[in-house]
Amino acid sequence: MKILILGGDGYLGWPTSMFFANKGHHVYSIDNLSKRKIESEYGIEPLNDISTFKKRINHWNKNQSNSINYRVVDLLNYKVLNELLESFQPEAIIHYAEQPSAPYSMASRDKAVFTQYNNVIGNLNLLFAIRKHCPSTHLIKLGTLGEYGTPNIDIEEGWLEIEHNGRKDRVLYPKKPGSFYHLSKVHDSNNIEFACRIWGTRCTDLNQGLVYGLKTEEIDYDFENLATSFHYDSIFGTVINRFITQIALGKPMTIYGNGSQKRGFLNIVDTLKCVDLAVNNPPKEGEYRVFNQFTDFLSLVEMSNKIKIFAKQNSIKAETINIENPRIEDENHYYNPKNTSLLSLGLKPIEFDSNQIENIFKIVKANLDRVNQDTLDPNIKWKY
Amino acid sequence: MKILILGGDGYLGWPTSMFFANKGHHVYSIDNLSKRKIESEYGIEPLNDISTFKKRINHWNKNQSNSINYRVVDLLNYKVLNELLESFQPEAIIHYAEQPSAPYSMASRDKAVFTQYNNVIGNLNLLFAIRKHCPSTHLIKLGTLGEYGTPNIDIEEGWLEIEHNGRKDRVLYPKKPGSFYHLSKVHDSNNIEFACRIWGTRCTDLNQGLVYGLKTEEIDYDFENLATSFHYDSIFGTVINRFITQIALGKPMTIYGNGSQKRGFLNIVDTLKCVDLAVNNPPKEGEYRVFNQFTDFLSLVEMSNKIKIFAKQNSIKAETINIENPRIEDENHYYNPKNTSLLSLGLKPIEFDSNQIENIFKIVKANLDRVNQDTLDPNIKWKY
Repeated sequence: MKILILGGDGYLGWPTSMFFANKGHHVYSIDNLSKRKIESEYGIEPLNDISTFKKRINHWNKNQSNSINYRVVDLLNYKVLNELLESFQPEAIIHYAEQPSAPYSMASRDKAVFTQYNNVIGNLNLLFAIRKHCPSTHLIKLGTLGEYGTPNIDIEEGWLEIEHNGRKDRVLYPKKPGSFYHLSKVHDSNNIEFACRIWGTRCTDLNQGLVYGLKTEEIDYDFENLATSFHYDSIFGTVINRFITQIALGKPMTIYGNGSQKRGFLNIVDTLKCVDLAVNNPPKEGEYRVFNQFTDFLSLVEMSNKIKIFAKQNSIKAETINIENPRIEDENHYYNPKNTSLLSLGLKPIEFDSNQIENIFKIVKANLDRVNQDTLDPNIKWKY
Repeated sequence: MKILILGGDGYLGWPTSMFFANKGHHVYSIDNLSKRKIESEYGIEPLNDISTFKKRINHWNKNQSNSINYRVVDLLNYKVLNELLESFQPEAIIHYAEQPSAPYSMASRDKAVFTQYNNVIGNLNLLFAIRKHCPSTHLIKLGTLGEYGTPNIDIEEGWLEIEHNGRKDRVLYPKKPGSFYHLSKVHDSNNIEFACRIWGTRCTDLNQGLVYGLKTEEIDYDFENLATSFHYDSIFGTVINRFITQIALGKPMTIYGNGSQKRGFLNIVDTLKCVDLAVNNPPKEGEYRVFNQFTDFLSLVEMSNKIKIFAKQNSIKAETINIENPRIEDENHYYNPKNTSLLSLGLKPIEFDSNQIENIFKIVKANLDRVNQDTLDPNIKWKY
């Protein structure tokens, strides 16, 4: 199958590119390198020394039989995007190409504007280019579980059967996103649903939890040259990465607020499996389908407890401290997101256990001299 | 009260500017003249010969005791927007400053992008400037009834009390907008609700129906120099304006599709009253309040029947023909939008009757030689 991957230089885009190439698909991977630019701006780097987009792909292509096409393209460049879709004629498009940091989007007016402009207009360009050149392609769009916020009712998968004043309808699930970044994904989802409705576009919107892990089959072929990025910093890092980095440094894990707030999450290998399940089970013409893509959810305290178990098994010091929550979010809240769609398609979740934590811990330990401790603490507040 | 009006050169912004000045408020009116640029691009003009932003305001200021400050400012110019909010310190901001045409937003990729960029980023700039310079100001944002689409349940005012799997919540009303323009307003609403939630911004979002009429107290002081624009064309015109223009020309009223689709609407004087009610009854800090702003709703066929009654009373020929619907929308649908908030604040609706139709008809008749019949028929399709 011809698969176009947008954001192919990112934490997930790169492993996804190798994964589908390795399965024998014809993969074209593009990226605008925007995340690397933001890294330079803030003076942050992934923990591991990953090579450039070009070098990683060249390395893959030199050593593997199924090569990856690539190009540096910005979705905001509509002309080039058109040329690409017209010539490549993808059967599936996996769209990771968005500014991915909630704190970045909250740092200032210009960061909020960049986030919504880059994400919303890029996605709008994509919808028009699909309609023009490959209207039957399957758009697989990465959204986030954070779009839903923390409603007091069960979180269904994108749609909600509703009864009101004795009448029924099936409506888009009402969302309450937690940052200008999360809002940009909600705007995207609304634009996409409309494109499906009026143009017959087919889309799977994956509302994903936070992804952890650095090991995939393809990365393990040659970790030095094919690794994906590990971010522990307060801009691009996730809480799991930060906690593990902190215990590796012998520092306490910093919990934002009281830590009762919950996060859905999944292993990077499960992300690849989920995207593969979506690719292999496309929605019908005009269908806007949403899967909640996570395998488990825990509060921050529960996550830190899992890490404490691993630490105890390995005689590592692991404490937690509570710091002021830089975000504005409900801490004590009801949380019951559903994830039955992907399970019913056959997903067998990987458990977040000491083995998984150890895999990450080892890589952190090996790169401990590269940690910039100044970037661990949150310096962007939601209200200022 | 110090009131800032955004989009002060528009069909509603201009009468609103005069209305509040006439009440003795300190009015500052700004516009980027973007609608006039789009008119030039498409070779369309309002039916009546309205003067420029500058001339209308100068004329008002020369002849009235309560003057209007004005400036040509684009909300995309964040620097100037900041200076304005910092120096003027508005207590209320009435925000009409958006690309207002659904067909325009559907004409092509660049028009869709312009619409969402102009509206969403302009509104985002405004939220940041408010937070910085006048966090207690009351933002009155004009949305549209078209954001809701045509759900099979009653349309509540912005929020919905929901029960799902035995649990309850109050959520944003799920929307299904009908064009990239309507989507831009949904994106705005989502961004604004977030600003209210995290920064304590106070906002009234007015989801307005289509507005008809050209007579307000202030316009009637000097119709020649103070009139607001009347658009009958397929880009900026509304169905009521088109129907009345068509019977004035002796042509049949063109109904898109079977005409059973419904539209909420209100008289321009009621728009002014509603905005005034919002100004005088501000929401509390952090409240995101939504009013559905219309006084009646009818199907297109029912609207044309009202016009037929007027025509019969005046021995004017009035026929209808059904043409292919250029939009993709449900024609036969349930429609029950609520509008109790404004009524409970004291709004006494003006009825859409033969008197109101006559007021418009007279102005159309007086300007009949200016009608460009080429612009009456829809030339932008939702699906192409």
